Amino acid sequence: MTKDQSNAMWGGRFAAGPDAIMEAINASIGFDRRLARQDIEGSRAHAAMLAETGILSSKDAEAIREGLLTVLSEIEGGTFAFSTALEDIHMNVEARLKEIIGEPAGRLHTGRSRNDQVATDFKLWVRDQIDAAVAGLEALIRALLAQAEAGAEWVMPGFTHLQTAQPVTWGHHMMAYVEMFGRDMSRFADARARMNECPLGAAALAGTSFPIDRHATAQALGFDRPAANSLDAVSDRDFALEFLSAASICAMHLSRFAEELVIWSSAQFRFVTLSDRFSTGSSIMPQKKNPDAAELIRAKIGRIFGANVALMTVMKGLPLAYSKDMQEDKEQVFDAADNLMLALAAMEGMVRDMTANRAALEAAAASGFSTATDLADWLVRALGLPFREAHHVTGALVALAEQKGCDLPGLSLSEMQQVHSDIREDVFSVLGVHNSVASRVSYGGTAPTQVRAQIGRWKDRLG
Amino acid sequence: MTKDQSNAMWGGRFAAGPDAIMEAINASIGFDRRLARQDIEGSRAHAAMLAETGILSSKDAEAIREGLLTVLSEIEGGTFAFSTALEDIHMNVEARLKEIIGEPAGRLHTGRSRNDQVATDFKLWVRDQIDAAVAGLEALIRALLAQAEAGAEWVMPGFTHLQTAQPVTWGHHMMAYVEMFGRDMSRFADARARMNECPLGAAALAGTSFPIDRHATAQALGFDRPAANSLDAVSDRDFALEFLSAASICAMHLSRFAEELVIWSSAQFRFVTLSDRFSTGSSIMPQKKNPDAAELIRAKIGRIFGANVALMTVMKGLPLAYSKDMQEDKEQVFDAADNLMLALAAMEGMVRDMTANRAALEAAAASGFSTATDLADWLVRALGLPFREAHHVTGALVALAEQKGCDLPGLSLSEMQQVHSDIREDVFSVLGVHNSVASRVSYGGTAPTQVRAQIGRWKDRLG
Amino acid sequence: MTKDQSNAMWGGRFAAGPDAIMEAINASIGFDRRLARQDIEGSRAHAAMLAETGILSSKDAEAIREGLLTVLSEIEGGTFAFSTALEDIHMNVEARLKEIIGEPAGRLHTGRSRNDQVATDFKLWVRDQIDAAVAGLEALIRALLAQAEAGAEWVMPGFTHLQTAQPVTWGHHMMAYVEMFGRDMSRFADARARMNECPLGAAALAGTSFPIDRHATAQALGFDRPAANSLDAVSDRDFALEFLSAASICAMHLSRFAEELVIWSSAQFRFVTLSDRFSTGSSIMPQKKNPDAAELIRAKIGRIFGANVALMTVMKGLPLAYSKDMQEDKEQVFDAADNLMLALAAMEGMVRDMTANRAALEAAAASGFSTATDLADWLVRALGLPFREAHHVTGALVALAEQKGCDLPGLSLSEMQQVHSDIREDVFSVLGVHNSVASRVSYGGTAPTQVRAQIGRWKDRLG
Amino acid sequence: MTKDQSNAMWGGRFAAGPDAIMEAINASIGFDRRLARQDIEGSRAHAAMLAETGILSSKDAEAIREGLLTVLSEIEGGTFAFSTALEDIHMNVEARLKEIIGEPAGRLHTGRSRNDQVATDFKLWVRDQIDAAVAGLEALIRALLAQAEAGAEWVMPGFTHLQTAQPVTWGHHMMAYVEMFGRDMSRFADARARMNECPLGAAALAGTSFPIDRHATAQALGFDRPAANSLDAVSDRDFALEFLSAASICAMHLSRFAEELVIWSSAQFRFVTLSDRFSTGSSIMPQKKNPDAAELIRAKIGRIFGANVALMTVMKGLPLAYSKDMQEDKEQVFDAADNLMLALAAMEGMVRDMTANRAALEAAAASGFSTATDLADWLVRALGLPFREAHHVTGALVALAEQKGCDLPGLSLSEMQQVHSDIREDVFSVLGVHNSVASRVSYGGTAPTQVRAQIGRWKDRLG
Repeated sequence: MTKDQSNAMWGGRFAAGPDAIMEAINASIGFDRRLARQDIEGSRAHAAMLAETGILSSKDAEAIREGLLTVLSEIEGGTFAFSTALEDIHMNVEARLKEIIGEPAGRLHTGRSRNDQVATDFKLWVRDQIDAAVAGLEALIRALLAQAEAGAEWVMPGFTHLQTAQPVTWGHHMMAYVEMFGRDMSRFADARARMNECPLGAAALAGTSFPIDRHATAQALGFDRPAANSLDAVSDRDFALEFLSAASICAMHLSRFAEELVIWSSAQFRFVTLSDRFSTGSSIMPQKKNPDAAELIRAKIGRIFGANVALMTVMKGLPLAYSKDMQEDKEQVFDAADNLMLALAAMEGMVRDMTANRAALEAAAASGFSTATDLADWLVRALGLPFREAHHVTGALVALAEQKGCDLPGLSLSEMQQVHSDIREDVFSVLGVHNSVASRVSYGGTAPTQVRAQIGRWKDRLG
Repeated sequence: MTKDQSNAMWGGRFAAGPDAIMEAINASIGFDRRLARQDIEGSRAHAAMLAETGILSSKDAEAIREGLLTVLSEIEGGTFAFSTALEDIHMNVEARLKEIIGEPAGRLHTGRSRNDQVATDFKLWVRDQIDAAVAGLEALIRALLAQAEAGAEWVMPGFTHLQTAQPVTWGHHMMAYVEMFGRDMSRFADARARMNECPLGAAALAGTSFPIDRHATAQALGFDRPAANSLDAVSDRDFALEFLSAASICAMHLSRFAEELVIWSSAQFRFVTLSDRFSTGSSIMPQKKNPDAAELIRAKIGRIFGANVALMTVMKGLPLAYSKDMQEDKEQVFDAADNLMLALAAMEGMVRDMTANRAALEAAAASGFSTATDLADWLVRALGLPFREAHHVTGALVALAEQKGCDLPGLSLSEMQQVHSDIREDVFSVLGVHNSVASRVSYGGTAPTQVRAQIGRWKDRLG
Repeated sequence: MTKDQSNAMWGGRFAAGPDAIMEAINASIGFDRRLARQDIEGSRAHAAMLAETGILSSKDAEAIREGLLTVLSEIEGGTFAFSTALEDIHMNVEARLKEIIGEPAGRLHTGRSRNDQVATDFKLWVRDQIDAAVAGLEALIRALLAQAEAGAEWVMPGFTHLQTAQPVTWGHHMMAYVEMFGRDMSRFADARARMNECPLGAAALAGTSFPIDRHATAQALGFDRPAANSLDAVSDRDFALEFLSAASICAMHLSRFAEELVIWSSAQFRFVTLSDRFSTGSSIMPQKKNPDAAELIRAKIGRIFGANVALMTVMKGLPLAYSKDMQEDKEQVFDAADNLMLALAAMEGMVRDMTANRAALEAAAASGFSTATDLADWLVRALGLPFREAHHVTGALVALAEQKGCDLPGLSLSEMQQVHSDIREDVFSVLGVHNSVASRVSYGGTAPTQVRAQIGRWKDRLG
Repeated sequence: MTKDQSNAMWGGRFAAGPDAIMEAINASIGFDRRLARQDIEGSRAHAAMLAETGILSSKDAEAIREGLLTVLSEIEGGTFAFSTALEDIHMNVEARLKEIIGEPAGRLHTGRSRNDQVATDFKLWVRDQIDAAVAGLEALIRALLAQAEAGAEWVMPGFTHLQTAQPVTWGHHMMAYVEMFGRDMSRFADARARMNECPLGAAALAGTSFPIDRHATAQALGFDRPAANSLDAVSDRDFALEFLSAASICAMHLSRFAEELVIWSSAQFRFVTLSDRFSTGSSIMPQKKNPDAAELIRAKIGRIFGANVALMTVMKGLPLAYSKDMQEDKEQVFDAADNLMLALAAMEGMVRDMTANRAALEAAAASGFSTATDLADWLVRALGLPFREAHHVTGALVALAEQKGCDLPGLSLSEMQQVHSDIREDVFSVLGVHNSVASRVSYGGTAPTQVRAQIGRWKDRLG
């Protein structure tokens, strides 16, 4: 591109001049319209409180509350005409309210300002997302519990370094993710409890001289209490950052599971078959099934954690109280929340639909002398050998099996006794992958009995 | 630099060949020695449990537990010889234990592995840091409370966009940070409660067939319960990520306060004077006092949040259970924790030492017709004017004052009545910055009475 | 919210079931329609090449090329009906082409695949953004040069730690940003040169057996050469990451300047007055002028660097060649590019409009004995004093002036000689802020002559 | 831990009081001692210039230059006693110089300050790292070229979505990484050229009135020119950020390759065997070989990109010129550089040592009807079928083969002709993985001829 062309393009983009640039960078109605429901909910609570405290007449308050419902129905019905000149959702709603009910609309803003209003709206929105995330996590956990219950006895390789280490059960592996997503639920719940303080009535930053009742509005909006300091109330975005932090950790868990699903779906592993609904095929290679949904879920941590970085960077070093920088908070949280919910739903669908290939799992679990540690433990436990000697004997037995081309249970007792004469018949009770997993009965271990106990505890917890 | 030189340097750096490279990338003893105390604590609890469950003789267990104390005293005394060939702290401790007590040392590793051992050690370390962070935050809050109490009545400008918006009180401003740091305390407390499950006994990943008592070790180490799933227990680093998330938000709060201190220390603001201890001077410009500590605190969010990004990136897409990637967890958390504690201590010191320049604060608060909103509110409240008309009248009064070269309280009643004839003598009760702040008595507002109430609630909370 | 409600909301959001979820997570047409022009440009070049190499008949190629122009005009005219079922922009364009020209449309895809097609489209789009960024930077630099030229002699405080250190000139300060934005231009130019290799013809990943001419399509699309390795060509997103890296550093520069403008606009500094177009006012506080545009520009580094983090996280650990994760690349780059261009345009507008308050700048420059180092340098240079002794003498003179309540030039020669008897009349030639800046004639220094030389070099460079 | 204990710990940590805290947060000698060589190099060049311009006597300059060599030899010999009270490397060196040569040491600081000194030191250090990175990348590329040359004909699966898509050659896959690391080299080279401007002589921020010759020092230190603006020179950290950006992209490439090596080393893939030197084994599972080095390399992107985030966050919104926040720049860059060099060296060693398992690669390449697209292309090319019909016919042939339990080359001509009667004997020339890869001769394609051409171009480029 020549310089003239690029200048033309540049000029073209901003040809409308400084006013258009300022409008483009300054107006938020393009995205904060998503707060319409919360904004109206907050205003209705505020109006009711103004009437109860005598600041507003009951008649005006009623007109305002009814008018706001009309505005909401227009917005939800898609007939509302948003105006960029009115900058944000608050002004858009208020201007329309004035058209509908006239003068009393102007009294709604008594004892509050846009600063506490937007903080309240946004908190209500984030709180809803937390509830949705918890519901989505619960649905995903239920799908995992179903998989775990079906496969509490199925054996599969337990990997470290993507190398087979010890056999585990399918149910145990599923329950590991239940623990992770369970922590995510608890993290969201904590965030909800901490953020559940109402900014409304903090006004611009200093509070107000009107005799408002902040406890009343807090209660009406489902908050536990009013925020304790008005300066903090309008300059705080911790609730958004904590939501993004919890969402990022959750997305990290999803990325780990998705990675496993991608690897397990490869022709080399074939541990699972994903349903057609969450894969895409090839018109000419019928066996090729791309795990698109899993890959996209794996990638979501990028934008969700990216949003966390973005908002943290915005908040760094901002003096109190409100700075316009904070207008950059919403798009990040909107995008992260949308993508988290989508990823949770897609993962739940995939888990519900996927089929474990038991034969492939069991074959892989049995390869590579994966019960060598069981043998070593038996030597310690049954023969009283010190740990290091047990390891030495086990190594010799594995070498012998390798030489014979068999797995450990394929050795005869006499062959074993050539390596260590104290070995007895009941050594075979720990060899073989089913014996191995059955023996791991320590609390939280991979034994089917333990896995079923884990499942039971979670079912009780979820009710 | 010529190519040959750079190749030489490159070669020089790694001249020792592949083995040296592998040792350099693989060994962790260079940093995980910081876990020595936790490692020994965990091993002592494990040995005691092995004896109680009869897996180990009481005599061996006692020898191990005594020997470990000897090792600890060597490490803390600086006489322990760490070996890179032994890779990590666990092997270093175990090898030394063997030298001291001989064969029984080999029995310590029964029913556990390095995977659950390192998870336990690291959790204990992080838990200590959480306790330290909470203590540091509490100290900082106490310093802020002292400032707030002293200056509950002092007026200063309340800023939005770094422009004076309304007068607030010094105490109110300090209490905004108390709220922030209070949320940080609560966030750390939640993280502690969530992480307080003991990985010990998860073994390599599948649990163990030894009849260990995981509840006993959990209790001995101050955990609330054993971790519920052994696969999750060894592959989980949520506790580190959640610590880093909470630390990042806390560092963000510190960066905001530090930014204010830097701006307030400028010759143009002169709102505060920092003590010499937390500033550096100039040998020839005696009035120049650089707020070095504040700037460094402001910067700490970089490395703390950078550590969060680092570990989140490491964990992205890792298959279960343990992968060596996870060895990268510790240095990030160590560095973030060290710097958070340092920043908290420095901030506490600065807050304790700093002097508010009351005259400068009050003069700034009074400039710029900062009580215009008080006047508008009075017109609404006392005269029943609609909000928009009240704004119009206020604008006219401000213009009149500007023309006269005085502030709003400088207008006479008759001058005011020329703008709106209903204005009465008691309008003066809301003009002036002291009247303004005194009137903002809504819950959480800037009025001294409200500020004192906030202080009181915090004192009760901290005890 | 009760559990039932939250489940209902969750269910409601994804009520349409798994197919709707898969479509929502999988389809990209919602955002990749922005690549329409690049997609058609690429397809037209491909068709022309297929004809030149005899793979396609001239007639078919011509039909395709004309048909694509029709599609483009439909898209640009807003009459094109995008279909989510067709997933992405490539399929949407191809399907419409088939409707328009029939069977030959199916031949367009010979010797290419969606993998190289999307890489080509996206590169062309990013390349356009680089050109736009360079144009935007040049415009901003010209605005800065105009400010620098006007104020090459105006003195202002040079700050370290936001404390006055030495006087500098306004022009010098503006030229510091010219250097920064000049490096940004150069960084974008390097990124452009590096990325300017054409992926088209890499096909799915292995190249093709059709006798295509990749040099021809590369040239037709303005690339310097075809990409050298087909596997790399379809799995490479370096160009997007490097664009984001350069954009992030540029956004960091913008954030620094924006921070200065916010501070300089405060009532305490009053160094600049921003135009009404880039500020917002208050209806009742006429002197309040919020630097909204500056604050929003300061914040843009958040989302731009956040996008960088997002894409880097996505790309971490992806095996070759194409994985669906990479579909997450576009929205990040789109958003970052849009916001960078907007921030550059807004900053250019602000710089063009802003007014430096010369009196305030000069007064601030002179306060705080800011020429003390000039005096010390004079003592070294003129009297041959060692550095440390010169500092000592200067300190004594500053103390004397402070005691007298004057600045250094306010001392008489005899008073100075009481401190050090060798001081001569010409010491006054270095005192005072104008003398100070005039003396800093080292290359790149703050002296007006040096600033004018810097301006001249930049004017030559920009032409 | 009880509250008292945690307070005691907190108190204990900072028991030494505010002065100790300030020293801990403020002093940089703990890490910036790594700049000793650069600091002395810079000072020697400065002294030489001061003598040449007559600002310093030749005798003093010579004493300084000799004295500095003594200091350097003490530091490199490990006999230098660093002092925290002297804060940083500059003061440590200067103080020791004074002890060695006496009074002339005080004249070294003429015409410079710590601000330009540290910028110069750090740039020299980063420049060395760039040279080391380029050398390390070149060594890695040479190792990849050796692998590519050996395996230019070996076939392996080309993956998309970790599903076999088309056969490619081992050499081709290696060369994809050569392209990536080649771009890294070029990115570092651009960064070097851009940063190669000398800050020395910018002094505190305004330049100096001493008649220094900045071109002379720039030349002596290998810079292309002096930095053009003294304010920018001391406040610029672009060079560090650009180094970190380039290092991050390079680390991303390493993470992708490392991920492939981990997957390829799994029992399920067995595509490569890593050498014992870069793996760790198990004492009882002899076939288990953990790819520790690959995993650690995969993880390095975390800390390297984390450092990038850290420094970008620090620089966000910093006013000119120097702020103490910038002291946080060094540790991030040191750590990132160390780890990048280590990761490059380890990767080079692994690539050099690793063995491709040709049989496993070829078997995997042939499975899954991976030459279906070759067949479809042949139908288009040889029979003139439209693309979509060719796909349909191919699908039918694959289905037939699947039904027969053979791969495509296993079908007889007559069987093929039952599906489409025009199919001729020479269809077999494109079936089979060797035919497939041999046919992909488009520029940059996977055909051995093309791979050898790529290798040749790179050998020419590296010389």
